[in-house]
Amino acid sequence: MKQSVALLIIGSELLDGRVADTNSALICELCADAGIPVNSIVTVADSEQSIISALEFLSARAGYIIISGGIGPTTDDLTREAVAAFSGRELIPDKESHRALIKRYKKSGRKLDPAGEKQALFPEGSVIIPNTTGTAPGFRLSGAFAGKESVTIFALPGVPSELKLMLNESVLPYIREQEKQIKPALTKTLKFFGIPESLLCSKITDANLPDHIMLSYRANFPVIELKVSTFAGTEELNGALNQIRKSVGEEFIFSEAPELSLPAVVCSLLKDKGYTLATAESCTGGLIGKLITDIPGSSGCFKGSLVTYSNEAKLKLLSVNEEVLKDKGAVSAEVAEQMAGGAQKAFNSDLSLSVTGIAGPSGGSEEKPVGTFYIGFVATDCSAVFNYKFPSERKRVRAFAAYAALDVVRRYLLKLDFDHKPL
Amino acid sequence: MKQSVALLIIGSELLDGRVADTNSALICELCADAGIPVNSIVTVADSEQSIISALEFLSARAGYIIISGGIGPTTDDLTREAVAAFSGRELIPDKESHRALIKRYKKSGRKLDPAGEKQALFPEGSVIIPNTTGTAPGFRLSGAFAGKESVTIFALPGVPSELKLMLNESVLPYIREQEKQIKPALTKTLKFFGIPESLLCSKITDANLPDHIMLSYRANFPVIELKVSTFAGTEELNGALNQIRKSVGEEFIFSEAPELSLPAVVCSLLKDKGYTLATAESCTGGLIGKLITDIPGSSGCFKGSLVTYSNEAKLKLLSVNEEVLKDKGAVSAEVAEQMAGGAQKAFNSDLSLSVTGIAGPSGGSEEKPVGTFYIGFVATDCSAVFNYKFPSERKRVRAFAAYAALDVVRRYLLKLDFDHKPL
Repeated sequence: MKQSVALLIIGSELLDGRVADTNSALICELCADAGIPVNSIVTVADSEQSIISALEFLSARAGYIIISGGIGPTTDDLTREAVAAFSGRELIPDKESHRALIKRYKKSGRKLDPAGEKQALFPEGSVIIPNTTGTAPGFRLSGAFAGKESVTIFALPGVPSELKLMLNESVLPYIREQEKQIKPALTKTLKFFGIPESLLCSKITDANLPDHIMLSYRANFPVIELKVSTFAGTEELNGALNQIRKSVGEEFIFSEAPELSLPAVVCSLLKDKGYTLATAESCTGGLIGKLITDIPGSSGCFKGSLVTYSNEAKLKLLSVNEEVLKDKGAVSAEVAEQMAGGAQKAFNSDLSLSVTGIAGPSGGSEEKPVGTFYIGFVATDCSAVFNYKFPSERKRVRAFAAYAALDVVRRYLLKLDFDHKPL
Repeated sequence: MKQSVALLIIGSELLDGRVADTNSALICELCADAGIPVNSIVTVADSEQSIISALEFLSARAGYIIISGGIGPTTDDLTREAVAAFSGRELIPDKESHRALIKRYKKSGRKLDPAGEKQALFPEGSVIIPNTTGTAPGFRLSGAFAGKESVTIFALPGVPSELKLMLNESVLPYIREQEKQIKPALTKTLKFFGIPESLLCSKITDANLPDHIMLSYRANFPVIELKVSTFAGTEELNGALNQIRKSVGEEFIFSEAPELSLPAVVCSLLKDKGYTLATAESCTGGLIGKLITDIPGSSGCFKGSLVTYSNEAKLKLLSVNEEVLKDKGAVSAEVAEQMAGGAQKAFNSDLSLSVTGIAGPSGGSEEKPVGTFYIGFVATDCSAVFNYKFPSERKRVRAFAAYAALDVVRRYLLKLDFDHKPL
């Protein structure tokens, strides 16, 4: 347990239903990436006695305790007092921190008051952990306290951005320096669309990856993210990634960067090829346009969208044929195709996408149940229509349809196999 | 501490960065609403010894311990074994649970195997907590264990939907029955748009609410939710709500139901009045259409949107005047007004909204910095243009602009004061 980390999260607001704790997950993820095991988390209210009890409990379980919260200036910030009492150390003012506090308060037009001054007090023997983006500095204190084994306590602020920076810059490097046997895991994230999670899992099981490969799935509907990690080495990681690609199929992987979304991939492919895109949306109601224009600079490749939520608008603005609309219905391959053609013409774009479908909860029929939708696609050299059945709730049907439409463009631009007719 | 609750959350996946714990926040909120204080949360891995240590720690701190997780059939489900060891009780099979398990397995086409049979074992003296939506039943066990004071332990599954149901149906009613002095808080949620959080807070401070009123803010950008609670009584709660309404201004409150969004309010007002709406979107890129069509049945009031991301499309599809566009620029009051008029005509709608602006990160100028946008509004009896400066990042500018546009429609339909010209 000596090389393990325990977390102590402090804040009454986390216990009374007001605020959800996001710091634990943040610290656990950063520790995992650094190869440092976390073995317990305790959350207590802003009470000195509770913090002391938690420190007693955790110091028997881990060699490192990371505390988040309770080091600010208010009367309910009690971490420094509790750590001092637990360790039997006095609280001593630190001159440099005091000067820095005066400066920081002055900058925001305030005078350092007695409450604020508390933030320059630290248990004797502490090493101060600088806080470059916030007010309250943190501290580190090591020793064998309360008759327990030796432990190192880190006290950090509860503000997530300050906490993250101080973990990355001070705390994790310190622990890794102490625990030289710890190697951080090598990690890569693959992002999948268009393959159900169960099928993806079974294809990855088929890949028969070596035991040192650790997999962690995160469903971020309609995208599945797979974090692939190993302590073995870069070559081993790349080998596993190749095995996964081969087993699952390259075409389902749209990104290897955790921050790169499908719309961003589509925008960047469009710009690379110098193509423009327009869309005609019925059941997605503007969602495809929204997703593309989330991306800064999308005006360089996106001309616009005709959101024709009514049949009247489909006829008038997209020149859908009235008889076809009547005969085949608004949710049909024929109308999807005409909508795409109409948007291409209206916006004078190179490529065009359309979606028409039944998002639910009502509007479904036996032949076309909720979750039925058609995607139309027109390029300068080909066109295509796709029919999907994705029975689910409205929000998921719409998100899936929008992503499926964008994925058609990705596959076209990457010349991946998809069922289209040449013009 | 006797009437307090402590939570014990079990799962290695919560410590190694794979999954974020959402159960703690769920339980804390349900307990808070029921008036039951939670005083600590401990999260440990799937290890019998860790669970036992945590039970020892928590049984000294609270009269009730709610355990989430570790009661399923797999080898890393160790909660029942740990509670048995902690309490010094044998694990005893329960016939009725065993029969129910066989039935449940059969229904999903499986045979109950030895691993699955474990779910019918309970520490001697337990009361079984039925699980109507999942497989593993929970249990309740009371006693003075390990030389500590008397404690009641509830073991529940980690699946959030099962956990929630079992808390509401069995656990919280049991605790409230034991602790008759506990009254649940009376609660109402107000949802605000169009007033900055700091101004809202200061106006609520001005309202000088009585001490028994508890306030909890939750920013769900661009909306601010305020949960107003009291143990005093319905009359006192309503009195406080009226004081808040008066101090802040009725017009900033769009909903008193936590689940009712601004787009849903707008849709329902439109339908009540029998009006249809169309939109013309530039910088929001389809987001307004997306927000409206998130609402089931929005086809009854929403005709569609013209997402004219390019100037070319503004001229051609919305009949914006070329000279005006050149002279005033796409981001101008004049173009916003013409866009709204163009969409009203194109979709033949009663009301029409437009947004044109600079969402950033690039495209800003000194005169029109990032975050500048114009909203155009046309009804059958009036029109209006609004200019906003909301310097922020792209995502927030777009969300704020879309909500601001929808709020114009709400204010018009409710005949609230807003700066418009009669036609």
